[in-house]
Amino acid sequence: MSDHELKQAIKAADQAITAENFDELMEFYAEDATLVVRPGQNATGKDQIRKAFEAIAIHFKNQLKVRQGRMHVIEGGDTALVIMETILETEAEGSPIVRRATYVFRKSEADQWLCVVDNSYGTSLLDE
Amino acid sequence: MSDHELKQAIKAADQAITAENFDELMEFYAEDATLVVRPGQNATGKDQIRKAFEAIAIHFKNQLKVRQGRMHVIEGGDTALVIMETILETEAEGSPIVRRATYVFRKSEADQWLCVVDNSYGTSLLDE
Repeated sequence: MSDHELKQAIKAADQAITAENFDELMEFYAEDATLVVRPGQNATGKDQIRKAFEAIAIHFKNQLKVRQGRMHVIEGGDTALVIMETILETEAEGSPIVRRATYVFRKSEADQWLCVVDNSYGTSLLDE
Repeated sequence: MSDHELKQAIKAADQAITAENFDELMEFYAEDATLVVRPGQNATGKDQIRKAFEAIAIHFKNQLKVRQGRMHVIEGGDTALVIMETILETEAEGSPIVRRATYVFRKSEADQWLCVVDNSYGTSLLDE
């Protein structure tokens, strides 16, 4: 599954986060997507999601780097569930933070995968 | 989130699994849904999914009982990611098996939530 087209899309999105290129980043999301900012706090719609990423960049003192580990893609119809290791490197933390993320993508009418749910916390939401 | 309409739908589906009422169970799935039968083995489409559940019932000697624990629902557009504790009780196992499942639902044109990805293994797929 390593060469699934979604792997390239997620890699490009993570590079946009690292580069703080939020115009490009927003192209990966559906208009009505939801981002889990932290457990219990969601951002819905591109405006809220963009503001959340701007705040995250400031929180990490513009030093956040995001890269990808292993991934599984499960497609059902025009929808895909992605289970993925997301690796966060920051100035503040000595060693990288590895999360097991869950992303949902939907194929647009233009045959493009767009992220509709971005939950980098995966099933750890149940720990709250 | 305990009274989300998807909680009732999943509860009814789990009761159908326990009762081995596979006609009723299939009504919860979209035509092109995918079920993770076990890590590395998927069933796609209602025919394959139904056969998988029939085989699972035989595997557990018709003693499988499924019930729900805590859940989170994250909606993005017409799609919902459900993060949920699924509790399996079988004759063979002394104590219940608790999984952290990930389900993706999509709203149909008739405004009904249908399961498109059923992955009861959650992010533990990355352990393989």
